[in-house]
Amino acid sequence: MESALLFQILYFVAIIAEAMTAALAAGRREMDWVGVCLLGCVTALGGGSVRDVLLGRHPLSWVEHPSYLLITGAAALATIAIARYMHHLRRLFLFLDAVGLVVFTVIGCNVAIGLQMPVVIVIASGMITGCVGGVLRDILCTDIPLLFRAELYATVSVVTGGIYIAGLHTGIPHDIIIVFAMLVGLSLRLLALRFGWRMPKFVYTQSLH
Amino acid sequence: MESALLFQILYFVAIIAEAMTAALAAGRREMDWVGVCLLGCVTALGGGSVRDVLLGRHPLSWVEHPSYLLITGAAALATIAIARYMHHLRRLFLFLDAVGLVVFTVIGCNVAIGLQMPVVIVIASGMITGCVGGVLRDILCTDIPLLFRAELYATVSVVTGGIYIAGLHTGIPHDIIIVFAMLVGLSLRLLALRFGWRMPKFVYTQSLH
Amino acid sequence: MESALLFQILYFVAIIAEAMTAALAAGRREMDWVGVCLLGCVTALGGGSVRDVLLGRHPLSWVEHPSYLLITGAAALATIAIARYMHHLRRLFLFLDAVGLVVFTVIGCNVAIGLQMPVVIVIASGMITGCVGGVLRDILCTDIPLLFRAELYATVSVVTGGIYIAGLHTGIPHDIIIVFAMLVGLSLRLLALRFGWRMPKFVYTQSLH
Repeated sequence: MESALLFQILYFVAIIAEAMTAALAAGRREMDWVGVCLLGCVTALGGGSVRDVLLGRHPLSWVEHPSYLLITGAAALATIAIARYMHHLRRLFLFLDAVGLVVFTVIGCNVAIGLQMPVVIVIASGMITGCVGGVLRDILCTDIPLLFRAELYATVSVVTGGIYIAGLHTGIPHDIIIVFAMLVGLSLRLLALRFGWRMPKFVYTQSLH
Repeated sequence: MESALLFQILYFVAIIAEAMTAALAAGRREMDWVGVCLLGCVTALGGGSVRDVLLGRHPLSWVEHPSYLLITGAAALATIAIARYMHHLRRLFLFLDAVGLVVFTVIGCNVAIGLQMPVVIVIASGMITGCVGGVLRDILCTDIPLLFRAELYATVSVVTGGIYIAGLHTGIPHDIIIVFAMLVGLSLRLLALRFGWRMPKFVYTQSLH
Repeated sequence: MESALLFQILYFVAIIAEAMTAALAAGRREMDWVGVCLLGCVTALGGGSVRDVLLGRHPLSWVEHPSYLLITGAAALATIAIARYMHHLRRLFLFLDAVGLVVFTVIGCNVAIGLQMPVVIVIASGMITGCVGGVLRDILCTDIPLLFRAELYATVSVVTGGIYIAGLHTGIPHDIIIVFAMLVGLSLRLLALRFGWRMPKFVYTQSLH
């Protein structure tokens, strides 16, 4: 099926983009090459792994396809070589990172649908798949996860998942729903980046203790 | 059964209290509303989730009851609205947080007893259920987990679990043992808060490297 | 079998050494005695636990053998008592920590081989077993994981695992391969410590955002 092939290609684009942005985060923390490689793998494959562990689904994708580990590790290492040109590719990377977010989200929703999960869990599964890799990256860099602050990152995941699930009940062909949900999510993320859209912040300065 | 109903009510009180204190922690880190919501869910449901993942027990509680995600997310968001009054409710919240600790502990012990685990694992299961949610909250806020420093927090969990397990071998009715173990644990926690009781600290200033 | 007994002894040496070095890390963060105890358990047993959770293998070792929790907790507490003499034992501890790394690595490889995993996963399983405990320790102390910076730590794990796997295809007796792989790994780690060998760092100063 053509859509399955397209999806497989998008998945590889997504894990490679995630591994490369993680490598840059590692470089900002002056990690060594092994650290760069490991952070790339954890960031690219961590979201799906946490989802599968929480849903009790084995084997994990990278255990079944060890090549995923090699691809993401290699992408992270390659980033070291081309880092000096990355600044010129800044927009491309933010774009690919956004593609990764919506691709991961739709994959995560699909996994939960395949397990006959209720709607709330399907959305949660999409969010976990899309967002947790970046959270793990930030924890390992001892940053406060960007997810909790960034431009609509988690929101994009919820919106993408919601449109996808709603579309499944309309009778519109599956491939069209996927493409539509991803395009809406991607547009929302790119607009948020372009115009600096953010969720309102909650600022609380008192201590309970 | 009346005690089952009471326990169910106490469980909801516990997850709501945990979600709300997590929301305040998120506010101190100036997270956005989505971050507040997510941190509330992770803190309230993380302890039980980690316990179930470690014990290989599926489905997780929130996968089986997705309403738990909605309740804790809503409680965290509601906290934003009432935050300005929270300072007056400070004591109430420390009380509810302490209730949550002992309720989670007894639930965690019960889960391990149901799996015919040995005593050490029953106690550990109670501690993990009671304490890990707060550890995840602190990690996501890049604080050193309070658990490792706070007023007898983990100790209260061990004491509560120990009394509960010991009581099960006495022939005293189950409900009475639960209430007694929880009251002792709750009292210990409240006294520790009131009088600043702490475990002795281990201070080591040399480096092995 | 003699080699099984030797291995069991080395395993206990490894978890005790890991628990004790974790206790010192806890002391540098002025954690209380409970925190010391918990950090010791998590560091010593966390690598194997994460491996088993990712591979979907239950029960975890400490669930099956609760004595492991007691031993590592006790070792961490004992460290408080003897901390003032630890500086004189500095070299011994770095040595025991290196022994732990190679022992954990070989155990992790063996677990994956027992599950008929492909080579990449066998190596990954060894690395996770050998290295993740220390990563959890560093996250709980809000340090950037040493693994991403330290003297060939992860590299030693990969080399040890690689030699072990390669050796299994040579027809050389199993015990000899284990000892040889561990000796090479141990030597590499000790030489790296002695001469300050490190992997090259990746330094990247620009922000993608």
